Amino acid sequence: MPPVKHLMTPGPTAVPPAVLEALSLPILHHRTAEFRSIARGMNEDLAWLFGSAEAPQTVVGSGTAAMEAAIVSLLGHFRDSAEKALVLSNGKFAERWVKVCSAYGIGNVPLKVDYGQAPSPEQVEGKLKADPKLRAVVLVHSETSTATVCDLAGISAVCQAHGAMLLVDGITSVGAMPVEADGWKIDALVTGSQKALMNPPGLGFVSVSERGWQAAAKLGQTPYCLYLDLRAYREKTKDNDSPYTAAVNLVRGVAAACKMIRARGREATWADVRKQAVACRAAAEALGVKVFSKSPSDSVTALVYPAGVDDKKFRKETVEKHSVQLAGGQGSMEGSLFRISHMGAVTMGDLKATLTAVAEALISQGHKCSAAEALAAAEAAAK
Amino acid sequence: MPPVKHLMTPGPTAVPPAVLEALSLPILHHRTAEFRSIARGMNEDLAWLFGSAEAPQTVVGSGTAAMEAAIVSLLGHFRDSAEKALVLSNGKFAERWVKVCSAYGIGNVPLKVDYGQAPSPEQVEGKLKADPKLRAVVLVHSETSTATVCDLAGISAVCQAHGAMLLVDGITSVGAMPVEADGWKIDALVTGSQKALMNPPGLGFVSVSERGWQAAAKLGQTPYCLYLDLRAYREKTKDNDSPYTAAVNLVRGVAAACKMIRARGREATWADVRKQAVACRAAAEALGVKVFSKSPSDSVTALVYPAGVDDKKFRKETVEKHSVQLAGGQGSMEGSLFRISHMGAVTMGDLKATLTAVAEALISQGHKCSAAEALAAAEAAAK
Repeated sequence: MPPVKHLMTPGPTAVPPAVLEALSLPILHHRTAEFRSIARGMNEDLAWLFGSAEAPQTVVGSGTAAMEAAIVSLLGHFRDSAEKALVLSNGKFAERWVKVCSAYGIGNVPLKVDYGQAPSPEQVEGKLKADPKLRAVVLVHSETSTATVCDLAGISAVCQAHGAMLLVDGITSVGAMPVEADGWKIDALVTGSQKALMNPPGLGFVSVSERGWQAAAKLGQTPYCLYLDLRAYREKTKDNDSPYTAAVNLVRGVAAACKMIRARGREATWADVRKQAVACRAAAEALGVKVFSKSPSDSVTALVYPAGVDDKKFRKETVEKHSVQLAGGQGSMEGSLFRISHMGAVTMGDLKATLTAVAEALISQGHKCSAAEALAAAEAAAK
Repeated sequence: MPPVKHLMTPGPTAVPPAVLEALSLPILHHRTAEFRSIARGMNEDLAWLFGSAEAPQTVVGSGTAAMEAAIVSLLGHFRDSAEKALVLSNGKFAERWVKVCSAYGIGNVPLKVDYGQAPSPEQVEGKLKADPKLRAVVLVHSETSTATVCDLAGISAVCQAHGAMLLVDGITSVGAMPVEADGWKIDALVTGSQKALMNPPGLGFVSVSERGWQAAAKLGQTPYCLYLDLRAYREKTKDNDSPYTAAVNLVRGVAAACKMIRARGREATWADVRKQAVACRAAAEALGVKVFSKSPSDSVTALVYPAGVDDKKFRKETVEKHSVQLAGGQGSMEGSLFRISHMGAVTMGDLKATLTAVAEALISQGHKCSAAEALAAAEAAAK
C-alpha cells in the first residue's frame, strides 16, 4: 500500500520531509561535541516552546514514560507521607495517571468527570479545600481520547492559591495551543515527539519547575525507578548530554522540527491549529455530525458517528479511497466516534481533503450530507 | 563536519544504508494492519535471533530501560519476600543493575570481580550454595565498558542446578555471539537496537521464559512501575501490537536489519564478529598494545593506552585525520583505554582502516609501532 497522503491521526502525526531527512542522516555517536551541539539547539528551542527558562528533560520512551517520570520524580516522596495527589480523570490517558500513582504507592484521589467533559477550576478548588492532604494536582491538558481541553490557566491559579503542585500531561497541547510552563507555574509539563513536534514516536520531554526539582530532591539517594528518575537527566541536560544512550536520530528529527516551529512562531502555530479546529467544528455542524466533547480541544476533534454508520467500514473507505487516515475511538468509545488531528504538519488543505472524504464515506453509509456544504462552512469559519 | 566513515563505537554502531532508508519512510500509524505486519516480521526474526520460541517484548527506551523492565517484572516480587538476587558486578553496566534492584527494594548481593575479569560459574555456584535465599542471578554477558565476556552457558548450568532464575544483559551479545534464550534456559534476555541490530538507539528488547512469566505473575495486579511492566507488553505483542505508542520508524529500521541478519545467517554473523575480534587482538599484540580484558569479548575490544599516550588527542586524531570514531573508557577507566566495536555493519575493511589509524595516532604520540605489521598480524589471524 502506498503511504497515506493525509495522516490525520492525533499521534503519530504527519512528519514533514525535512524531518524525515534528518532522521535518515548517517548515525552520530551521542558522546561527541557534534551531537551535543544538535542537542543544545533542540534544548534551547524546546525551552522556548514550553515557555520555560530551563530546558526540558528528554526521555527515550513514549509519552507515558515521560509522564510516569514526572509523577515518580516529583510525587514519589508522597509514598512515605500522608500527602496525596488529586488526579483529574476524564479519559483514557487521565485514567492511566491514576494507575501510575498507584503503582508507586503514591496516595491519590481521582476527580472523575464524564468522558467529553473537562474538570473545572471550581471542582478542583472544592476538592483542595475539602482535603488539605491533597498537595498536588495531576491533569491532562488536552485529553486526546475524548478531544477535550480543560482550563489549565484557571486550574493553575487554584493550585497556586492552595500551594499545590501541578503536573500536566501536555502531550497533545504543547506546541499546539497556549501553554506556559513558567508563566502558569506548572511544576511538570510533558509532551512527546509524535504530536505537535511532528516526529515519529520515541521521545518524551518533561519541563520541571524549581519547586518541582525541590520536590524531587525529597526522594533521597535511592529513586523508586532508576530509568525514570529525572534528577539523573538534569545533571546531564546541563551539558546537552544524557544519562542513558540518546536516541540520536530522533533528537535530530526533533531539532529539525523545532527549527521549523521557531521560524513560524509559537503564536502563529497555535493560531493555525485553532483555525483548523474551528473550521472542522463548523464543517461537522454542516455535515450533521456531533462534536463529542463539551469542551473541545483545538489540537484534535472527536466526532460522533451518526446512527447506523460503521466505524471500521467508514475509516477503511477514507483511507482506501481518499488516502485519509483517521483515528477511531479508544476504550469504551471505540466504534462510536472518530478523530481528526490539527497538530503539526497538517494544513487547511489536508483538512479539506479530510472533510471531503468524511462526507463521502458518510454518504456511502446512508447519512445525508454534502461535502460542498461542509467545505463552505469550514472556509467561512476559518476566515 | 562530514559524517565519519568508520563508526567503530560499541553503540551506537554503524547503521547500514538499507536501515537509514527504512527510517526515513513516511510515517505509518501504529494501530494499522500495515504496521502490525511489519512488527510481525520483526518479532518473528527477533525470536529466531534470540533463539526463543516466543518473540521478545519491545520497549521504547534505551537498553537500560529494557533491562530495568526485566528486573522489575521478574524480580519485583522479591520486595515482599526474603528472596534475593545475586548480581554479578564487573563493570559500569553490571553496577547499574545493582542500583536498579535497590531502587525497587529487591534484595541483592553483588558478586564483585575486578574490571576486566569475568565472574566464573564456580564463583556463582559458591555463592548460590552458601545462601539459599539467592533465587536469581543477574549478569552482563558482554560487559561493554571493559569488553569482557563471561561463560554464560556455564553459569546457566549452575543456575539450573540450583533452580535460580537467570536474567541476562545481552545488550552487546545478542546478534554478535552465541546466545540461546531457550537453549540456555535464560529467563530474561535483553538487547538494544543500537548494537548488533545496526539501528539508532531507542528500542530495547526483552525475551522472557515461561518461568520468567510465572515469576512476573507473582507481582499482582499493581506493578511497581507501569511503563516497565512487561506483562502489559506481552498481552499486545501476541497481536504484534504495543501497550504504548510504538516507535514506528525504529521498528521499521530493526525489521530491515533483521532481514539482513536472517539472509546472512546467525552463525555466519557470529563468525564474522569473532573473526574481527581475533584479528584485532592479534593486531594489538603486533602494535605492542595490551588487551584490557582477561576474558575478552568478541563484540568489542578494549585496548590499554601505552604510557604517555593522551586519550583525547589520540581519538581526535583518528576521527579528524582518518574518519575513524573510537570509544574511550568509561568511569574510572576514562583516559586509560579505548574501544573498537566488531558488531553489526562494520567489516574487516573498517577494521583495517581502524588499525591503520590507531597505529598512526600512536606513532604521533611517540609510541613505536608499525601499521603494516598490525595489518599483517590481523590478516594472518583472520584466516
